[in-house]
Amino acid sequence: MKLTPQENAIIFAKTPMKDQLQHKIDFKTKPVGALGMLEQLALQIGTVQQTLSPELRNPALVVFGGDHGIANDGVSAYPQEVTYQMVLNFLREGAAINVFSKQHGFDLRIVDAGVNFDFESSDRLVNQKVGKGTKSFLSDQAMTSAQLSECITKGQAVVKDIAATGTNIIGFGEMGIGNTSAAAMIMSYLCDLPLEQCVGKGTGLNDEQLDKKLNILQQAKDFHGDITDPEQVCATFGGFEMAQMYGAMLEAYEQNMIILVDGFIASSVFLVASKVKPAIVDNAVFCHLSDENGHRLMLQQLKVSPILRLGMRLGEGTGCALAYPIIQSAVNFLNEMASFESAGVSEKS
Amino acid sequence: MKLTPQENAIIFAKTPMKDQLQHKIDFKTKPVGALGMLEQLALQIGTVQQTLSPELRNPALVVFGGDHGIANDGVSAYPQEVTYQMVLNFLREGAAINVFSKQHGFDLRIVDAGVNFDFESSDRLVNQKVGKGTKSFLSDQAMTSAQLSECITKGQAVVKDIAATGTNIIGFGEMGIGNTSAAAMIMSYLCDLPLEQCVGKGTGLNDEQLDKKLNILQQAKDFHGDITDPEQVCATFGGFEMAQMYGAMLEAYEQNMIILVDGFIASSVFLVASKVKPAIVDNAVFCHLSDENGHRLMLQQLKVSPILRLGMRLGEGTGCALAYPIIQSAVNFLNEMASFESAGVSEKS
Repeated sequence: MKLTPQENAIIFAKTPMKDQLQHKIDFKTKPVGALGMLEQLALQIGTVQQTLSPELRNPALVVFGGDHGIANDGVSAYPQEVTYQMVLNFLREGAAINVFSKQHGFDLRIVDAGVNFDFESSDRLVNQKVGKGTKSFLSDQAMTSAQLSECITKGQAVVKDIAATGTNIIGFGEMGIGNTSAAAMIMSYLCDLPLEQCVGKGTGLNDEQLDKKLNILQQAKDFHGDITDPEQVCATFGGFEMAQMYGAMLEAYEQNMIILVDGFIASSVFLVASKVKPAIVDNAVFCHLSDENGHRLMLQQLKVSPILRLGMRLGEGTGCALAYPIIQSAVNFLNEMASFESAGVSEKS
Repeated sequence: MKLTPQENAIIFAKTPMKDQLQHKIDFKTKPVGALGMLEQLALQIGTVQQTLSPELRNPALVVFGGDHGIANDGVSAYPQEVTYQMVLNFLREGAAINVFSKQHGFDLRIVDAGVNFDFESSDRLVNQKVGKGTKSFLSDQAMTSAQLSECITKGQAVVKDIAATGTNIIGFGEMGIGNTSAAAMIMSYLCDLPLEQCVGKGTGLNDEQLDKKLNILQQAKDFHGDITDPEQVCATFGGFEMAQMYGAMLEAYEQNMIILVDGFIASSVFLVASKVKPAIVDNAVFCHLSDENGHRLMLQQLKVSPILRLGMRLGEGTGCALAYPIIQSAVNFLNEMASFESAGVSEKS
């Protein structure tokens, strides 16, 4: 059966957007599949935005800072005060995330979600402090249910504010001494994996310190016993910066933004969000594979592949910023490359 | 290997700078090593440029096009005419490398090194044609020694021309139907590996076509027997675009540029260059791991790690362009991040 061009156009219009996108990708002047992960990203972003010509607008990055009671129990190579010192470093534009955000034109916002320090009031710092650090989860819940709710609302608020500027792609970073411990606990509970597979060297523990960290976290697991509700897991072990990031991810999904997921901590927060709202994975781009021990397995559990594998383990959202130009390239090839037909290039035999 | 006093002096002069750079990297406000491969890149580029504040100036990308006699013997999924059609596509800015070069501000130059087509004269095409395609290496040398020399000189010339604009970082791409076969032969000879480990699906052969390609290349290997001189290997199996890229890489090293090495074809050319001038590896950045079968093993043989692993297999220099922002980030963090001391951040206990 031969169709007229008009009939073809009608059929094409009724084809699901995902199929139309795949057709557009496959007829670009390159062998089918030759742009690898860029083709998957183009397909994903076009499907999220429901268009054959997607665009990335006003990329934003929110870094949440918060302190952890567990940091004072010997799980980290750095003292708790580094959290506030690094937040000050963000405000003075001296940190890695400042450099990379500037390079790629990100709107960077720094949020005090619960740092154990009294910052001077500043236009550059979003004050969403829920408390001066969580309680140690060795012998208590890190935060109350009321605090979790407050975090979710505040995390949503910052994304709503950003959405008003037209942003349709957003990444999230964190700063919180002790938060690889919190993330390892969340991973162990939500993936039902032994702590050994979830705990890593964080900012740089030696083998002896790593053993100590593992023992401390095992004590916490014994103390708390079974917990299955994902938000309850988040409240029991998470930091205020992680709980606010959780609310922020949920809101970014509501706003139909592309969500840039950074490394081990951010992925553990995404794990909570994906248990509550499984469809959120449709909007998520996993920016890099962290060098932190549990991250590879966590991404496997989420059944996703990261864009970059650079052996980084810094957090702050640095993986999001570094992956951004690759994502932009995916959108650009879809919009700008010629097709075989338009370029007059012969197809494969 | 015994070094001359001159070479020793060069090594001695470079050692202190490397140590100074490592110190600068380690005292940035991040855990030691937390930026992974970015730290290695910063160290390498600072060492090549002999400065604690390196910079990337006027990035350039040269795409060499050339035809291969072997393409008419059934080794490729695409007909030979696709080489000239794609060169026309480059000139009309419709190909992937146009899109990515534009995104990152590359000075993109297209060189006709030996395409089997008469192009109209154009400002945008550098005419360095050595012939209308090589001979099939099934029963002859692909090019004569005189043609190889001509290619080297012409490849050097285009880089000298670019160096005059102040460029200190350069990538090389290629277009030539049949050139994964040429690259596989070079790899097999120079790495002393069986063809099975070097031959891949190129632009998209099926299993049966791959078997045929392997058989054809095995015939060629039987016909030519032992060859050990790297330039002789290049002349016997390479394309004009590959031989010009070889000359260009040598010249880029002479100009002390950072050399961006793309995928399977470009790495096979680099292999030739590294046999002739081992120190060239100091200036080389391996941009991505291609999906082409032999590339992983080739990089292992070169003892190098690629920046990106995106499952791409397109050539054209696309891996160079996509890796560029990561390399820029490495330079930026070295130049712009605060140190622990300047930021007042506590160090690790």
